[in-house]
Amino acid sequence: MAESDHPIHTPDQLLARYQAVRGHSVALAAGLSEEDCCAQSMPDASPVKWHLAHVTWFFEIFILEELEQDFRPFHPAFRMLFNSYYNGVGDRHARAQRGLLTRPALREVLAYRDNVDRRMAGLIGGVQAGRAARLAALVELGLHHEQQHQELLLTDVKHLFSMSPLYPALYSAAPSAGPPAFDPASDERKPLPPASSQPGWLCFEGGVSQMGHDGRGFGFDNEGPRHRVFVEPFMLARGLVSNARYLEFIAAGGYDDPRHWLSEGWEWRCSLGVHAPFYWRRDEAGGWNEFTLRGLQLLEPDAPVNHLSYYEADACARWCGARLPTEAEWEHAAALHEPSFQDLYGSRWQWTSSSYAPYPGYRPAGGAIGEYNGKFMVNQYVLRGSSCATPPGHARRSYRNFFPAGARWQFTGLRLAQSTRQSTPQVR
Amino acid sequence: MAESDHPIHTPDQLLARYQAVRGHSVALAAGLSEEDCCAQSMPDASPVKWHLAHVTWFFEIFILEELEQDFRPFHPAFRMLFNSYYNGVGDRHARAQRGLLTRPALREVLAYRDNVDRRMAGLIGGVQAGRAARLAALVELGLHHEQQHQELLLTDVKHLFSMSPLYPALYSAAPSAGPPAFDPASDERKPLPPASSQPGWLCFEGGVSQMGHDGRGFGFDNEGPRHRVFVEPFMLARGLVSNARYLEFIAAGGYDDPRHWLSEGWEWRCSLGVHAPFYWRRDEAGGWNEFTLRGLQLLEPDAPVNHLSYYEADACARWCGARLPTEAEWEHAAALHEPSFQDLYGSRWQWTSSSYAPYPGYRPAGGAIGEYNGKFMVNQYVLRGSSCATPPGHARRSYRNFFPAGARWQFTGLRLAQSTRQSTPQVR
Amino acid sequence: MAESDHPIHTPDQLLARYQAVRGHSVALAAGLSEEDCCAQSMPDASPVKWHLAHVTWFFEIFILEELEQDFRPFHPAFRMLFNSYYNGVGDRHARAQRGLLTRPALREVLAYRDNVDRRMAGLIGGVQAGRAARLAALVELGLHHEQQHQELLLTDVKHLFSMSPLYPALYSAAPSAGPPAFDPASDERKPLPPASSQPGWLCFEGGVSQMGHDGRGFGFDNEGPRHRVFVEPFMLARGLVSNARYLEFIAAGGYDDPRHWLSEGWEWRCSLGVHAPFYWRRDEAGGWNEFTLRGLQLLEPDAPVNHLSYYEADACARWCGARLPTEAEWEHAAALHEPSFQDLYGSRWQWTSSSYAPYPGYRPAGGAIGEYNGKFMVNQYVLRGSSCATPPGHARRSYRNFFPAGARWQFTGLRLAQSTRQSTPQVR
Amino acid sequence: MAESDHPIHTPDQLLARYQAVRGHSVALAAGLSEEDCCAQSMPDASPVKWHLAHVTWFFEIFILEELEQDFRPFHPAFRMLFNSYYNGVGDRHARAQRGLLTRPALREVLAYRDNVDRRMAGLIGGVQAGRAARLAALVELGLHHEQQHQELLLTDVKHLFSMSPLYPALYSAAPSAGPPAFDPASDERKPLPPASSQPGWLCFEGGVSQMGHDGRGFGFDNEGPRHRVFVEPFMLARGLVSNARYLEFIAAGGYDDPRHWLSEGWEWRCSLGVHAPFYWRRDEAGGWNEFTLRGLQLLEPDAPVNHLSYYEADACARWCGARLPTEAEWEHAAALHEPSFQDLYGSRWQWTSSSYAPYPGYRPAGGAIGEYNGKFMVNQYVLRGSSCATPPGHARRSYRNFFPAGARWQFTGLRLAQSTRQSTPQVR
Repeated sequence: MAESDHPIHTPDQLLARYQAVRGHSVALAAGLSEEDCCAQSMPDASPVKWHLAHVTWFFEIFILEELEQDFRPFHPAFRMLFNSYYNGVGDRHARAQRGLLTRPALREVLAYRDNVDRRMAGLIGGVQAGRAARLAALVELGLHHEQQHQELLLTDVKHLFSMSPLYPALYSAAPSAGPPAFDPASDERKPLPPASSQPGWLCFEGGVSQMGHDGRGFGFDNEGPRHRVFVEPFMLARGLVSNARYLEFIAAGGYDDPRHWLSEGWEWRCSLGVHAPFYWRRDEAGGWNEFTLRGLQLLEPDAPVNHLSYYEADACARWCGARLPTEAEWEHAAALHEPSFQDLYGSRWQWTSSSYAPYPGYRPAGGAIGEYNGKFMVNQYVLRGSSCATPPGHARRSYRNFFPAGARWQFTGLRLAQSTRQSTPQVR
Repeated sequence: MAESDHPIHTPDQLLARYQAVRGHSVALAAGLSEEDCCAQSMPDASPVKWHLAHVTWFFEIFILEELEQDFRPFHPAFRMLFNSYYNGVGDRHARAQRGLLTRPALREVLAYRDNVDRRMAGLIGGVQAGRAARLAALVELGLHHEQQHQELLLTDVKHLFSMSPLYPALYSAAPSAGPPAFDPASDERKPLPPASSQPGWLCFEGGVSQMGHDGRGFGFDNEGPRHRVFVEPFMLARGLVSNARYLEFIAAGGYDDPRHWLSEGWEWRCSLGVHAPFYWRRDEAGGWNEFTLRGLQLLEPDAPVNHLSYYEADACARWCGARLPTEAEWEHAAALHEPSFQDLYGSRWQWTSSSYAPYPGYRPAGGAIGEYNGKFMVNQYVLRGSSCATPPGHARRSYRNFFPAGARWQFTGLRLAQSTRQSTPQVR
Repeated sequence: MAESDHPIHTPDQLLARYQAVRGHSVALAAGLSEEDCCAQSMPDASPVKWHLAHVTWFFEIFILEELEQDFRPFHPAFRMLFNSYYNGVGDRHARAQRGLLTRPALREVLAYRDNVDRRMAGLIGGVQAGRAARLAALVELGLHHEQQHQELLLTDVKHLFSMSPLYPALYSAAPSAGPPAFDPASDERKPLPPASSQPGWLCFEGGVSQMGHDGRGFGFDNEGPRHRVFVEPFMLARGLVSNARYLEFIAAGGYDDPRHWLSEGWEWRCSLGVHAPFYWRRDEAGGWNEFTLRGLQLLEPDAPVNHLSYYEADACARWCGARLPTEAEWEHAAALHEPSFQDLYGSRWQWTSSSYAPYPGYRPAGGAIGEYNGKFMVNQYVLRGSSCATPPGHARRSYRNFFPAGARWQFTGLRLAQSTRQSTPQVR
Repeated sequence: MAESDHPIHTPDQLLARYQAVRGHSVALAAGLSEEDCCAQSMPDASPVKWHLAHVTWFFEIFILEELEQDFRPFHPAFRMLFNSYYNGVGDRHARAQRGLLTRPALREVLAYRDNVDRRMAGLIGGVQAGRAARLAALVELGLHHEQQHQELLLTDVKHLFSMSPLYPALYSAAPSAGPPAFDPASDERKPLPPASSQPGWLCFEGGVSQMGHDGRGFGFDNEGPRHRVFVEPFMLARGLVSNARYLEFIAAGGYDDPRHWLSEGWEWRCSLGVHAPFYWRRDEAGGWNEFTLRGLQLLEPDAPVNHLSYYEADACARWCGARLPTEAEWEHAAALHEPSFQDLYGSRWQWTSSSYAPYPGYRPAGGAIGEYNGKFMVNQYVLRGSSCATPPGHARRSYRNFFPAGARWQFTGLRLAQSTRQSTPQVR
């Protein structure tokens, strides 16, 4: 993000936005006990308490430590305990042992948040003129970072609760009278509009296209630089693949026929014994339930299928006679015909066949903060759009989410693509 | 490969080519004992005997079984024993247990080769007119398949011998008076011309470019369809990174500083304790030797560095202030200025940052043979060019080799690239 | 335990004892937060909350379910959630996932305890005459079971806290003015009397000896039947091996010389990188601290060495020119000269060289409760005596504790033995 | 073995015995190819070639190196390559990589054998008078060592061949006209006499008994010192458990009911998916075959069951209402009533419930040779008797074979025992 293009907030605006985003994190954890906030269900997931502390750490380490007068850390051990992966900051606590941090207690983490919020308010209100732009850029980055963790907090709690035979619910099962302004579990509380009932496709002629963040508003470094790509003609489905359609894939033996699968996907499916999406559970009568943040619910046929790995998305697409889109295709289509699509945002992240790689000319920032995105650009696949767990205002067209091909605990679904022209097989 | 574009061989030409390629496989194993040919040093590598049998199986299963009159298998168990990964053909022997197949003996596998060669000669000489084109296409595919395994045979024997404290040599250490017509260990027998002494770069303006196989001559299905890409301006190094340059990377602490590494690469480096290229061995005085097919040899500073993983190539490139090229950049540069580069072919495979993915419109062949390439298109990276172990006539500009990022036992090196324009870091 | 030998308590006595033991469990957890009680630091350890629930489950499942009129379970899922390993009771929650049970909350588990305690009080006060003996036997078993878990609760919390860089303390570091009636962390709060300052040995002539529980008072089934063994002449050390002695073993290179170690012990030591007892930590000056329930403390040279694996105990004994005692030797010596020894009880469990095996004529009880001890009699080693974490009144001469050879997180130490007569080596 | 008790051979006698035993090893490998002799089917098994070299190494390192004038090693690398586990001798080749030693070739190992045999003959014929007794003791040890490997060679080849879908046979399936003088596969070539048709038991009153090697003839150090034990009254089955009886165990759901199993045994059974003895294979009609050194054969109901793990033997015994004998019981019974038993020797090794531990007063020899037995005395169980693969003259009453509880590839079976008196369960 070029600073010159950055809409400079007034200190008051910046502070208001800071407080809104920060407050939202705490609100998300409202229904959780100390124990819920402490447990870690797998190495890939982090405890809620750790999320709440780490996003605070981000502000303390990357902003206060640089810009605050007479900086003193809230607690000397926190620098290490809540460092996620920044080698430039120093040592860090082993990722798989975050759930063993019963101390500091949740209330101490909340006190840490309060302390940093107070100091940040002071800094925002009183920063030196020459540092204001840099401060604003860093705060903006920190807030988008916190929003990413807001979504992870929900996916990680969902995973934790799914491990319990009691299937706890984060949200009440009863539909609320009116939807809240922001509803992270919206797709879990009320039936979705039938997402896939119009199975139509939109066709694109392709050609040279621009992709990447255009410099207006915030974007992560991995969304730039904006550059040109050539897109061959293709079609993209208006809607997402629904549970009903996915049930057909299962009924047709999709999980039992290696011909639909990538070789590595087949090994994955066999070694883990996968035979349905991640949170689907059979009831005693053989019907399907789905574990949600409202607890175990009857599977809704019309809702978009959720919690697919890349391997499953790819296999189902193949079985449908289609394929995953590339991220260039997705962005091209979204730029041209956004209103024509359903569920581009706010429903399911959409796997693309594009591995997560730097755009031409990509250069990370210097220092530890440069580790934010760039060092993960191998063996991960890009997801586009956003999900029902993405905080409001966080998604955008150039956004690049990324996960390994076997990841299933994110809100991940499938939008089909096809090439308009296909090759002639070599041997026929 | 469209058949219409295929230069139809006369039966005699086809047979001569068949016999040349087939004979070469046996010649490669000439210096090996029964025991050398049977052992399997890791699941990723196969025994020489298995390679010799599997490439024969390919002709028997995919050609003779379809086109031979009164087809009868040479041995009923071979269909399963020497099936590599074709689910469409049926069961297969566990990959990691290929080295336990002490039976059939090497001489029985050679008898299998003779038998299939005799039957193939009969078929080539007497195929029905209407099947001739299909036969020629299949034979061509089988021969390129066999050539791929010729290279694998050498890389796998090299790996096996590297596991022995005796460091056996496949080839005599004494330089031969004159080079043979084909010399799979050429880079191991004589000093290479100083590959990296001209550290210059070639600059490309980019633009819309065609890439992929153009239909003239043989190409694997994954090389097509030919399609357009947009290439942003870039530079590509004329030569490969040399051992001397790589030694500088090591001396500068390259293996000890996570800032040079992809996050996953750093974990890989730490968990395996990697601190030098795969076959480098310290001598007692602290100098470096390199294990080669001629046995343990003093490291040659001017030779291109060999046996790098993707992670190491990426880290060294980053330390050099450069990056890996994409496969589109590599192919674009090779198409425009092939003579200006050193070691494009015949020295080291060159890692690209492009994950192995289908080209737009790619469609594999029907049936089991369609499993040849397509199902591996995830979590692998494309290598371009060819190596000193690649058989003559096998490499071409559109060739896409691919391996996982941690693979080191192939003849893999590094050619640097740079973007001409770079992004402005988000936070500065 | 033969019932006829059992000192039948009056209902009032039995209830008082029940309430004392049950109350002690809750008292042990007094200094712990909800989070401390929920976390599980390794599959071998259980959360405090799980311990508190499981011992309650034992009374509910094995007593109330059989003897209570109109039995109704407190919560239908608890039968499965808090089943440790009783196949006869049905399914059970995966051991390694006990730490993910954030629900039920600690307060719900305490409510479960209250509920069961109330029902048990009713049952003890009103049992049918014909069932009184059986009830008393089962209650006694349940209370000894709970006492076993009281020790495990402490060892498991110690392990959890040792994983935190903050090294939390369960007990205040300041020595208490007067020792409490029962002091589970006594060896951690005050300097021990110099345990090993009299390095003398007691000699035994051996002969036919009785071993096993004699039927007076409670004993677990694995302590019987009482039977005869022949004990060859031996010596047993009066005291335990001290930290100071163990430091000599380390200083002499004990951890670096495979000749002192069992072959499997050496592999264990190398694969885990063990080079000191489990909770020893070097400070920055190179001195040794020991993590205790009071937090990190300077190592006390005179205290008995703690937290040894069988492998370490065996290696140190060998280095001392001695060996581990058998359990028959230990019990024989304790029966004859208990007052002559130091630290037989209440300090460190003492490894014996006896694998945990049934005594001749051993027969477990019928039904699920028969799984209590018998099914673990393979690949474990017997420990005798008791530790500073063992509840008062729980230890006795015939007590057989048992753990796998690599276990280190129990309070395990070393008492040396020697054979009076030794063999002549075969080859000399 | 006390040397004074040793029947000193004349040099000629010693040499003749040396040559007989050494020749037998080579004879065992007669039907095997170079490839058969090189492959290693699992880390626990060694290649035949390695066995042939290692037993030769034993003579070279432990005898020639000490006693030969002007000793020079046959090959400097062999000291390391063929060292099994003697830390006192120095480094050794990684056990799991023995199958990668394609060099030295089999013929080089046979040349090594010839060389050492020639030098040993010279030494035996010309040893200094003062060293004759030591030489004789060492040679005797070396020959018994070689005999142990003769049995291992057969068990390891059997395992290797069992991994091949071709199920190769080491011995011809046709029954030989007359049995050879020694017949390692006797139980595999001809139907056994119905071993278990007399299901009777022999009763023993027990009491103080002597056990261990009595010093007459050769014994390994772990068989001594002879010492007293007290044996409580017991019964021991005359015959071994037959295949027919084991089939009843299977038919009764023995593999599916955890109540029959040790807890660790049940985990073992579940994690490996065990449901029958190691080499049993179902044919297409649902009948049972057994893989033998004669290839795949119909299961013989009357033959003793073979290739059981300790866990399976224990579970089957429990299901029979019996238990495994201790090694003291086994030796006591064999001493008193050897002729009354069937298959004590030469059929199946018999699991005992005794963990492999030192006898009271056991002291290994000094130096590297002291590593022979003592360092394995943990987490292994003693087997008594001998098997059909044990060389003639190798078995004896005090012999202690030992393997981990999960080992199945040895010729291991089951003889039942019972205690005459049993305990009264604690809770009834």
